[in-house]
Amino acid sequence: MSDLPESVDITEEGPREGFQIEPGPISTERKIALIDALSATGLKRIQVASFVNPKMVPGWADAEAVVAGFTPREGVEYIALWFNPAGLQRTLAFKDRLTVKGSITVSASEAFSLKNLNRDHAGQIEAMRKHVAAHQAAGVPVNRISLMAAFGCNFSGDVTVAQSLAALAGAMALAKETGCTIEKIAIADSMGWANPAQVERVVGAVRERYPDQRIGLHLHDTRGMAVACAHAGLRLGVREYDATAGGLGGCPFAAHPGAPGNIATEELVFLCEELGVRTGVDVEALLAASALAEEIVGHALPSAMLRGGGLGSYRARARAA
Amino acid sequence: MSDLPESVDITEEGPREGFQIEPGPISTERKIALIDALSATGLKRIQVASFVNPKMVPGWADAEAVVAGFTPREGVEYIALWFNPAGLQRTLAFKDRLTVKGSITVSASEAFSLKNLNRDHAGQIEAMRKHVAAHQAAGVPVNRISLMAAFGCNFSGDVTVAQSLAALAGAMALAKETGCTIEKIAIADSMGWANPAQVERVVGAVRERYPDQRIGLHLHDTRGMAVACAHAGLRLGVREYDATAGGLGGCPFAAHPGAPGNIATEELVFLCEELGVRTGVDVEALLAASALAEEIVGHALPSAMLRGGGLGSYRARARAA
Repeated sequence: MSDLPESVDITEEGPREGFQIEPGPISTERKIALIDALSATGLKRIQVASFVNPKMVPGWADAEAVVAGFTPREGVEYIALWFNPAGLQRTLAFKDRLTVKGSITVSASEAFSLKNLNRDHAGQIEAMRKHVAAHQAAGVPVNRISLMAAFGCNFSGDVTVAQSLAALAGAMALAKETGCTIEKIAIADSMGWANPAQVERVVGAVRERYPDQRIGLHLHDTRGMAVACAHAGLRLGVREYDATAGGLGGCPFAAHPGAPGNIATEELVFLCEELGVRTGVDVEALLAASALAEEIVGHALPSAMLRGGGLGSYRARARAA
Repeated sequence: MSDLPESVDITEEGPREGFQIEPGPISTERKIALIDALSATGLKRIQVASFVNPKMVPGWADAEAVVAGFTPREGVEYIALWFNPAGLQRTLAFKDRLTVKGSITVSASEAFSLKNLNRDHAGQIEAMRKHVAAHQAAGVPVNRISLMAAFGCNFSGDVTVAQSLAALAGAMALAKETGCTIEKIAIADSMGWANPAQVERVVGAVRERYPDQRIGLHLHDTRGMAVACAHAGLRLGVREYDATAGGLGGCPFAAHPGAPGNIATEELVFLCEELGVRTGVDVEALLAASALAEEIVGHALPSAMLRGGGLGSYRARARAA
């Protein structure tokens, strides 16, 4: 298993993803309780809020209160999400509590860009040019590229490696033009189309084209493939993964309501630890945090492991016997 | 991807597994409806009933009526499960509708054997000696070995490859002694402990020891690893898999009720077909059968894909656009 990395970095996106999509109002206190529980599991990076227009995303009308309210833990990085200069300014008001760095976001599928961002490829690059300028004006580095819809698109079907590379090339050219030093390319399976062979092809091609970049995977479990795709990433040495506790989040692009969203953090952690890849996360503590998330949202979360439980207690009992 | 098999054989165990574990009474007609729906998906082998003591498993008190009632479809093999001579005789009453072949079952974990079968390794071999004799007396070939608990055990913890090989050696010796020609070794993750690296180790070791045997995998998704484990099997050329529509079945050994059971057939089919491995199964028809299974049992089944849906309609729409 020598190709596996020694350790991985997981970004927990459960609070942001989960509280964005849940229909019911969830109190600020409960959001903070989940963030504080996740902080105690060994996770090193947690996305805690989305500074978006409260008229568009009512679930995040209390972003400021949540960010002001959680208890920062030594060694844990807290991040937020924003899409425009107003969101960036709201984020920067908490720069003592949040790590603030920007991304250039592009879509491998032009159809997805048009449907989701209301802009074609050229329009998206133009929008990102302004986005980068706003960050630079605020003194915020832009060090990451996010490639959406890299594995398939509900609107245009299968996405080729060439399409992903073309979109990345556009983003890289913009980074060069604007003087951004890109350190990471995050490849997202935005609509849950990926299979492990495709992860191999896309990650392989991106790594070959950009050998100095760190690669991250943002996987969705819409069709149950997320853990197998993460394993494909691990076998290629990918060290950075996004995930959500309990599989919080759902997928707005799935055929049916209630479809799984992001890969469940506990399943990713379990996979890694069983393979000998260190995560720094206590999977049993994480399962408890995911159970809290389930209690907070008030319905079953999609994680299989949240039902199945970990192996820690069985192993401890077996050792004691 | 040259190591992948060209095609796989899937044994659908949903009816037998599902109706065994569900608490509510399910009518014979509904069981038959599911079997007939599954027969129309392209699946080539379906386990339709369990001839067990109705006092122990009330859900299968109607095994005879179910087997008499389904509509056999050309090209589909129907099988059943039994554990003792009485069950074998009940099965043989339907030998015009069922393929009847026997297995030698052993456990890699002696603790599991003691807890689940109430016999140690030696006692299990002795019981299997009688089991084989009963089959031979009835003219039924015994051509398969089932290795339970090959990846871990809730009672004794991790299971080593050496333990699996030792249990297999015992079963093989019995087969030789009794003149059985073994054609397949089915390796079962009875309690959901497997990870893909372990599948590689166990399958690799079994294949090295018994290069002429077909290998099958019986995977459980208790901790969300089943698809990644199946992918590990595919990469090693394993061509035979058990699965259950919708993930029917649950796991009596999991920490919590409602834990996922077997790998969901639709997720296995989707994985294979996306990788270019032929299954012969129409995944959209299968999803419809799984939705019927969900309606019959009256609660959500664990399959992610049953929520997320297939990609067929998206691809068709993209092609038409």
